[in-house]
Amino acid sequence: MRWARFDHHGTATYGIVEGDSIQLVSGTPFGEWKKAGASVKLADAKLLIPFEPQTFYACGLNYAGHVREVAAKIGQPAVLPPNPDVGYRANNSLIAHNEAIVIPKDATEKVQYEGELVVVIGKKAKHLTRENALNCVLGYTIGNDVSERTWQKSDRTLWRAKNTDTFAPMGPWIETDVDLEKLVTKIRVNGKEPIQFPTNDMIFGVVDFLVAMTRYLTLVPGDMVWMGTEGATENMKHGDVCEVEIVGIGTLRNPVVRES
Amino acid sequence: MRWARFDHHGTATYGIVEGDSIQLVSGTPFGEWKKAGASVKLADAKLLIPFEPQTFYACGLNYAGHVREVAAKIGQPAVLPPNPDVGYRANNSLIAHNEAIVIPKDATEKVQYEGELVVVIGKKAKHLTRENALNCVLGYTIGNDVSERTWQKSDRTLWRAKNTDTFAPMGPWIETDVDLEKLVTKIRVNGKEPIQFPTNDMIFGVVDFLVAMTRYLTLVPGDMVWMGTEGATENMKHGDVCEVEIVGIGTLRNPVVRES
Repeated sequence: MRWARFDHHGTATYGIVEGDSIQLVSGTPFGEWKKAGASVKLADAKLLIPFEPQTFYACGLNYAGHVREVAAKIGQPAVLPPNPDVGYRANNSLIAHNEAIVIPKDATEKVQYEGELVVVIGKKAKHLTRENALNCVLGYTIGNDVSERTWQKSDRTLWRAKNTDTFAPMGPWIETDVDLEKLVTKIRVNGKEPIQFPTNDMIFGVVDFLVAMTRYLTLVPGDMVWMGTEGATENMKHGDVCEVEIVGIGTLRNPVVRES
Repeated sequence: MRWARFDHHGTATYGIVEGDSIQLVSGTPFGEWKKAGASVKLADAKLLIPFEPQTFYACGLNYAGHVREVAAKIGQPAVLPPNPDVGYRANNSLIAHNEAIVIPKDATEKVQYEGELVVVIGKKAKHLTRENALNCVLGYTIGNDVSERTWQKSDRTLWRAKNTDTFAPMGPWIETDVDLEKLVTKIRVNGKEPIQFPTNDMIFGVVDFLVAMTRYLTLVPGDMVWMGTEGATENMKHGDVCEVEIVGIGTLRNPVVRES
């Protein structure tokens, strides 16, 4: 099932994507809901971020190739993380499918995409086991963890490198029927030369993180975990369009503009 | 004005603390409100965290003495942060005044308090100036940034060292009438030997952080910024009671228990 959230006459409304249309729903995927008996054309709908998150968890370095790339870029030795130590990001940076990534005036040209699987938590959870961990997951969406590499290197935290307003496109919707092993991530800028990797080829997988996190933390509905990206990333500039596709979920597309 | 949030017959309700009572309010301090014409005794009220935060920002190392202490504890050289680079924390860790800090079974004995000023954002804000920065502040409350020092040293992030459930007591209320220069922080364990420091003796002050952050980030009502702590901190153990007083705001008191 694909849960979209869209602007319906000025109100954020949930619906279920079926073919070319969105079936309107009263309620939300995080609680009670029923089909409202109306639909809109998917092509006409202004999609919103698929939910308003509670805590924004991010795994950071979670693919071996990316760890080596980042280490090389910031001039430090590559060390694979020994444990699933999660990090945090901020909701101010979120934008929806089709909204513009705005590069601040004083950013360098090193503003880069990172295509990520996003785990959406649907149920309160603590002390999860490997066997029941995925029961708390409502579904999955796609994130683009836009990063300014000079700030990532210079600052004590990732606050502006990764949390500048508009630096976290997320969408287009939440897919609930996902086989993690079958997912493939493809990233394109202006439709060209896709970067491609098996989405689940992580250092620590979704189950690893959920089990580790909930040993100490209570997850609640609306929490989310961004699972990291693989490989080399490249600069995006004014006028570009960046697409992150995860085959089996959908395609998140965002134009890029530089603040003038 | 002192804004308390408390459990009123099972409903989270705002009120204004006046002497020994809380005057009930309909609405919230973040929007429209009016006095409801009823009151409860402050001593009888079960206080809740004074608001449900949006993004939980934390300044981290923001007092010179504390930077030296932490550096010594984790065996690294002391370096004062050159810029106000903010960090992030998670709402799962929040508990109210009088609620118990629960030390997990597998934590070491190095679970320590950190008494902090908490800035509560009341208005949407971007591109603040030094002149208007404080206009977006609704008021101030008190936080205890409980920290497990061995995890702080061993982990890649602060996720469990500082974000374990119950590791962020906050309260007792929001004080809107504050002269930052007059605030004094006093920290006591079991009523003894207060640590004391001028609250505003920060490396980067509230205005510094708000101006820097809003160059890239939009703050929204309900965001909060924990401003860091000063000096040496000490272990807390099962049965202790930790108090963080900020003279001019109030006293946040929490018992400590170890998970059995």
